[in-house]
Amino acid sequence: MSKDKVQIFDTTLRDGEQVPGCKLDTKQKLVIAKQLDQLGVDVIEAGFPISSPGDFQSVHEIAKLVKNATVCGLTRAVKKDIEVAAEALRGAVRPRIHTGIGTSASHIKYKFNSTQDKILERAYEAVAYAKTFVEDVEFYAEDAGRTDNEYLARICEAAIKAGATVLNIPDTTGYCLPEEYGAKMKYLKENVKGIEKAILSCHCHNDLGLATANSIAGVINGARQIECTINGIGERAGNTSLEEVVMILRQHPYLNLDTNIKSEMLYETSQMVSNKMGMPVQPNKAIVGSNAFAHSSGIHQDGVIKKRETYEIIDPAEVGVTESSIVLTARSGRAALAWRAKKVGYELTKVQLDEVYQEFLQYADRKKEIMDEDIHEIIEGCKVKLESLA
Amino acid sequence: MSKDKVQIFDTTLRDGEQVPGCKLDTKQKLVIAKQLDQLGVDVIEAGFPISSPGDFQSVHEIAKLVKNATVCGLTRAVKKDIEVAAEALRGAVRPRIHTGIGTSASHIKYKFNSTQDKILERAYEAVAYAKTFVEDVEFYAEDAGRTDNEYLARICEAAIKAGATVLNIPDTTGYCLPEEYGAKMKYLKENVKGIEKAILSCHCHNDLGLATANSIAGVINGARQIECTINGIGERAGNTSLEEVVMILRQHPYLNLDTNIKSEMLYETSQMVSNKMGMPVQPNKAIVGSNAFAHSSGIHQDGVIKKRETYEIIDPAEVGVTESSIVLTARSGRAALAWRAKKVGYELTKVQLDEVYQEFLQYADRKKEIMDEDIHEIIEGCKVKLESLA
Repeated sequence: MSKDKVQIFDTTLRDGEQVPGCKLDTKQKLVIAKQLDQLGVDVIEAGFPISSPGDFQSVHEIAKLVKNATVCGLTRAVKKDIEVAAEALRGAVRPRIHTGIGTSASHIKYKFNSTQDKILERAYEAVAYAKTFVEDVEFYAEDAGRTDNEYLARICEAAIKAGATVLNIPDTTGYCLPEEYGAKMKYLKENVKGIEKAILSCHCHNDLGLATANSIAGVINGARQIECTINGIGERAGNTSLEEVVMILRQHPYLNLDTNIKSEMLYETSQMVSNKMGMPVQPNKAIVGSNAFAHSSGIHQDGVIKKRETYEIIDPAEVGVTESSIVLTARSGRAALAWRAKKVGYELTKVQLDEVYQEFLQYADRKKEIMDEDIHEIIEGCKVKLESLA
Repeated sequence: MSKDKVQIFDTTLRDGEQVPGCKLDTKQKLVIAKQLDQLGVDVIEAGFPISSPGDFQSVHEIAKLVKNATVCGLTRAVKKDIEVAAEALRGAVRPRIHTGIGTSASHIKYKFNSTQDKILERAYEAVAYAKTFVEDVEFYAEDAGRTDNEYLARICEAAIKAGATVLNIPDTTGYCLPEEYGAKMKYLKENVKGIEKAILSCHCHNDLGLATANSIAGVINGARQIECTINGIGERAGNTSLEEVVMILRQHPYLNLDTNIKSEMLYETSQMVSNKMGMPVQPNKAIVGSNAFAHSSGIHQDGVIKKRETYEIIDPAEVGVTESSIVLTARSGRAALAWRAKKVGYELTKVQLDEVYQEFLQYADRKKEIMDEDIHEIIEGCKVKLESLA
């Protein structure tokens, strides 16, 4: 049975780039856009054209460069924003305008000092106006995570009537639990009239560490697009990590969902974005962190040496990492020491290994990590004893 | 109604410390243990005493130092391990031995070359033996995430019969989806005879970015302990982040679950662990990252200036962060610029603001972040124009 496709909407260059310290110039953005296109993302959100002349320029250049992915520009539900976005997107093979408005009680009252009915009207008008420029219009209901479901369904219906092709349901503040976000998608799938004409999209923030889980709950419950960024960068605690959702779907085939991502390009893409933005990837980052495939405890190393799958669910090569590593520390056991000693040229008998291991532990308690040269020093240091044991 | 308590089992000094680069000496471990005790964790897993003389020493010193939390030492289901752990824990006010064995088909076959029945027997014996030294014995079923539920229930029953007070159900490889992990807890809660005599514990790894969500699914389905680390450090992609699960429970009062953690100490604890281990916290880390409460897009800044709750679910002071920040970049809007200009001494009329904002955008497109001195430069630069507008 062929799997249902989940569209990957990458917003590294918009939601990611707006982060303190992550700003890029047009040239850098073009390099990343090209990489994302090759990686196989379905949509590249290139920027927020009205926000500054530099951002307009970036969106315009990316629109002309990218040949496979849809190129998308963000707007508020404001005519001028939409006109400027349409202008920036001229020349794109597949242009998309992403427009919308805050829909939660808090946003309607404190941000807009307005009413539900007036906001619904503005939503309809914005989509309809965007539709006069491009065929593909995505509508976002900002703070949908805290928006009452019944009103959210009404505003989604209005957006569809106005011609929206995608409905973005952002958990803007990162508040939802997976059950709750999944239930919201299910409600919309079941209650919005005309929902078959549009795709539901997940846009989750990571303020409580749940962006990835919420996005997965979203697609399990009917959404077919995930908005995400490389390395999970983005406003505050960031967005959903592209690499995480892609690999979750691939590792759980029974969900019957897949993406177009070429996963073997994930690691190099992660490195490129990190370097260009000067935003380090934490060593323990899932999938692309430097420790993601490193094993250090004795119990784990022994297991991995016997059979990789004991402690590794993903073959590192699948995401473009050359090999898993066995790091020697004071928490390592005999199996890892013997394996590494053999690699650097020592074939130890069981009795010799016991002897060397005691030395190793003393040595390792004083050092963070044991390198090949340390192994030589340790083994050479107990050579006399070893010979008597041979 | 009083809330159900979820015990926080901190394994920063064991699962965290075994990570490449994170090794600490005994003195550093004591400082962190003291901090964790003040933070209010219920259990401190202090190390794996048999792994090295240095680790033995650390566990022993922590056992004597800590007055409130339970102090726990890890062992394999091996007599010698258990004896050494009991010795290391002498002097603890509340000692716990944490023993266990791999229970998945993969672990039983490739790691132990054994059978389900023999593993069950070893589990029983290990718990019973640990029980001869201490009252409080936690049993772990390693790779429980990939262990068949029926067998897992049987081995849990055996551990309870042998006297286990806590049953740890680790998703060792970080493979489970939240639904699946939650269903596993529910199954055990409903099918293990004698389950009322023990607490179920979540121990989740973050290989797919789901550790936090899985732990929350676990406690929603009946577990009452979460094993976690500060900043989510740990083997490979790390463990569940203590700060995330604590704040999720606090932010969702309807779950009726809470912990003993003093949340206002979270930020300083995160910084201490990061500094001592030399392990940076990514800026977009939930709760404790430097950007966790930073707002940079114009839309968000405008919202936060009008009312903080528009884009922030947690008051930064609640986790020990002094204030949320409004970072000025080319993605900022008029509201943020006016707010910041006022802070540095300029009260701008609407017309003046329009003028300054155009200058600001040109300037900001060339710079990552706009500081106070830049504001002076921008405003002084258009002074003549501003006076004509006054």
